[in-house]
Amino acid sequence: MAPKDKEKRGKDTLKNPKGTRDWSDQDSTLLNDIFHQIRTVLSRYSTQLDTPVFELADVLKGKYGEDSKLIYDLADQGGELLSLRYDLTVPFARWLAMHPEVREYKRFAIGKVYRRDQPAIAKGRMREFYQCDVDFAGSGASTMWDSKIVAIVVEVFEALEWQGHYTIKLNHRKILDGIFEVCGVPEDKIRAISSAVDKLDKSPWEKVRTEMVETKGLDEAVADKIRTYVVQRGEKWQGSKELLESLKKDEALQANAKAKQGIDEMEVILRILEVLGAHRDISFDLCLARGLDYYTGIIYEVVTEGSAPATVNGGDAQQVQAEGKSKKKKKELTEDDDRSDDPSVGVGSVAAGGRYDNLVERFLPGSDMQCVGVSFGVDRIFSITKARLAQGKKFSYVSSTATDVYIMAFGGKEFSGLSAERLLIEQMLARAGLKVEYSAKDKPKPQLQFKNSEKCGAKYAVILGEDEQARGEVRVKELGLPDGHPEKEGVLVKLENLVSEVTARMKGLEVTEKVKDLEVAK
Amino acid sequence: MAPKDKEKRGKDTLKNPKGTRDWSDQDSTLLNDIFHQIRTVLSRYSTQLDTPVFELADVLKGKYGEDSKLIYDLADQGGELLSLRYDLTVPFARWLAMHPEVREYKRFAIGKVYRRDQPAIAKGRMREFYQCDVDFAGSGASTMWDSKIVAIVVEVFEALEWQGHYTIKLNHRKILDGIFEVCGVPEDKIRAISSAVDKLDKSPWEKVRTEMVETKGLDEAVADKIRTYVVQRGEKWQGSKELLESLKKDEALQANAKAKQGIDEMEVILRILEVLGAHRDISFDLCLARGLDYYTGIIYEVVTEGSAPATVNGGDAQQVQAEGKSKKKKKELTEDDDRSDDPSVGVGSVAAGGRYDNLVERFLPGSDMQCVGVSFGVDRIFSITKARLAQGKKFSYVSSTATDVYIMAFGGKEFSGLSAERLLIEQMLARAGLKVEYSAKDKPKPQLQFKNSEKCGAKYAVILGEDEQARGEVRVKELGLPDGHPEKEGVLVKLENLVSEVTARMKGLEVTEKVKDLEVAK
Repeated sequence: MAPKDKEKRGKDTLKNPKGTRDWSDQDSTLLNDIFHQIRTVLSRYSTQLDTPVFELADVLKGKYGEDSKLIYDLADQGGELLSLRYDLTVPFARWLAMHPEVREYKRFAIGKVYRRDQPAIAKGRMREFYQCDVDFAGSGASTMWDSKIVAIVVEVFEALEWQGHYTIKLNHRKILDGIFEVCGVPEDKIRAISSAVDKLDKSPWEKVRTEMVETKGLDEAVADKIRTYVVQRGEKWQGSKELLESLKKDEALQANAKAKQGIDEMEVILRILEVLGAHRDISFDLCLARGLDYYTGIIYEVVTEGSAPATVNGGDAQQVQAEGKSKKKKKELTEDDDRSDDPSVGVGSVAAGGRYDNLVERFLPGSDMQCVGVSFGVDRIFSITKARLAQGKKFSYVSSTATDVYIMAFGGKEFSGLSAERLLIEQMLARAGLKVEYSAKDKPKPQLQFKNSEKCGAKYAVILGEDEQARGEVRVKELGLPDGHPEKEGVLVKLENLVSEVTARMKGLEVTEKVKDLEVAK
Repeated sequence: MAPKDKEKRGKDTLKNPKGTRDWSDQDSTLLNDIFHQIRTVLSRYSTQLDTPVFELADVLKGKYGEDSKLIYDLADQGGELLSLRYDLTVPFARWLAMHPEVREYKRFAIGKVYRRDQPAIAKGRMREFYQCDVDFAGSGASTMWDSKIVAIVVEVFEALEWQGHYTIKLNHRKILDGIFEVCGVPEDKIRAISSAVDKLDKSPWEKVRTEMVETKGLDEAVADKIRTYVVQRGEKWQGSKELLESLKKDEALQANAKAKQGIDEMEVILRILEVLGAHRDISFDLCLARGLDYYTGIIYEVVTEGSAPATVNGGDAQQVQAEGKSKKKKKELTEDDDRSDDPSVGVGSVAAGGRYDNLVERFLPGSDMQCVGVSFGVDRIFSITKARLAQGKKFSYVSSTATDVYIMAFGGKEFSGLSAERLLIEQMLARAGLKVEYSAKDKPKPQLQFKNSEKCGAKYAVILGEDEQARGEVRVKELGLPDGHPEKEGVLVKLENLVSEVTARMKGLEVTEKVKDLEVAK
């Protein structure tokens, strides 16, 4: 190939596919810290199920309504026709149907899913993104599990240290359907009207009403009656309980079988959440409807300051504050990243789910498996956490990516480079949990080593010399000490004491830094 | 859809795609335990890079020689032409080429890769399988890194507790190429002869010789001269050092520039491995050639008792023993699994890699990035570990999947079911790290709860009753105690002491079981 062609080809292919991203360095570390927190909680209550990234095309067919056009198909290269998974829920239903002997199953799943959508990176809409789901399936699944999934959501966001920064919006499909019946929505219009109601978190009532009346042919009086219900939001726990009480007193709803069942279930669910201490950030919200057709009971959605601005809900004070704050940081955040991590752009909900009792039956006619679950939008949780870190918020579970120790070797004219010895010291320190760097050159120049140690921000240098080596000693030097400091030139340490010496010094440094932090805070 | 059609469709789609598997229950837990061990080691020396599951088709094109036909393409649904990744190496090279400002990078990656091959499940050949790679890239990469990657391999298998059960076969492409030159192989035949030599671990010399002479047109005398070299295997450390010494004394090789450079590098690499204490399970093996074209320096391959039988190498005693042992277990192992985990079937190498200095340049002409790395075959490591577990071997890092506690609730006629309270106790115990089960029914029958607690093998029951509940107490009962045991009916515990009481009892039980194990061992 001529060099010119080579270059051209090189340029064309030097990218990752549209709507995907490579996770590297600090982003990758933070993502893994987040996964670790979520996994720790989910594995308390479920076991992991890992399904292939593709399914038989027929498994996905007809499961996503209009969104089926977003499914990635594999090329027909002979053999089975395959599609990339669109979510983790349908593969779980497929697995349950393949194992009819399993009568009860609690599983979590972590994996990438694929949607051939127009990517909108700033909104967190990618073609390949992580989902993390937990779902409980059983033949006699009850409100216990409805509550338990919500309690797990709370436990996850507590593990992520988001306390006070998120709201779990809660509603019940049976209550909603009951309301529609009571208001006089014809049965064949209920799903369409429900999905119009779902837009109330983004659109004002007038727009939604127009959709109901003009597009979907609903009677105006019926639409206005719906309004009296769906504007009711139970703000946090107190408001949620009050809303429940008012629904219990609503004679029209109590006379409707569906609504009554939904309200009764909601009462049990709220009581259980209170016993579990998982009730504080709940908001019972009658305008939450969720898009997917297959929900049959409780539904929920977790929103945070970084979620899409809620027009009808008025955008609460916290959110506005976050928007103001983050604007200053915007430039900084986007410089080394191709997606805007400004939390004010609104990435939508960070977790959502509900009860879906008929999905398994679609694979296995006659199955009575009922499911309830939640899906965490890990990419969005990542973006918001990263933005908060940039704003100075600390999370105890976030790993440091800073270099602790830089290993150097110096010598005279006949210097061997002490490569093996540097690697040995790296191995000792790395096994003790320290982040270590060194030059990969066989005989690195002193200047280069000092420059690199600065560049990676190492706190300590461990310096090898041939004379010290012969005596079984190395020099430990805190970097950045002022001239005249008694330990400016470092201290000699026996090799066998190196790990304990450095870790003790690192801890001392941490204490000093914390004291400094406190002093700055004062 | 008519019910009949529905059933038919249900049946057709009720499978996972050919050559893939679902990871569930104990398998999933064991796989994660293995990942955790590998990740712990790799993250000491590198950071994770996670690339998309698909790449632009052009990125993969022309990188895998004949195996390119095994690449999965995505359907052309408009937009970019995409293919599923075939390994984790080419995406890493693509990433390095996209980031020419990065002059040194150490990364690990964990992910599934895709090969449209004929699946041979018993041989561990799947269409979707996990790989776990660690690669170092730099412009001045030296023998330090060659050694370091091998030392990481040792550290990983030590973390997996495979000591004494594996061998790292080591060779050097420059030595091999030098040998071929010295023996008189024409330059244009070197790669073809090299790949014939690579078959010596599976085929006898006569067959390989026939391939060289008849298929590849090599002179008979040249083939016989090659034999004198490639049968040389340095058995373990002592043999490896002896082989190196004999090559250093081989005047013909010392006179060949390539061979000399390879031998000199090998000497440094072995010396560093000894300093790092990573030398014991090395076997310097001149017949190791590795199939891939792109290797340019050190190459290695890790084999274990479960790896493919080595015909020419004579099948060592350990392997034969494992084959004999595992035959008895075969039925047991395959019963609940669609793939044979019999370690004697030979799953090939469990890790392999080497130095490849020109791959990045193929994406970025003029790049001087040189790479060395290794890929762990995690599915195979899993199969062998699972088989060894079934043979009674213990691994300290393997999580128990046994249920610790089953929570029950009993009551009279007006019994509420104590659902919220059972969930609260589950939450308390699960957060303390215990595996907990309970009935998902609102008002479970006593019989059912006892039956389920037995079925899941719970060690303890925590029993709730309404009277005890009112007093803030629950009953803790060790299951399976003989009649007449003083604690047969369990003991009453205050709710606030429950976690400490159960964990203390669990620890006591562990101690008792260890004593029992020791007694059995005697």
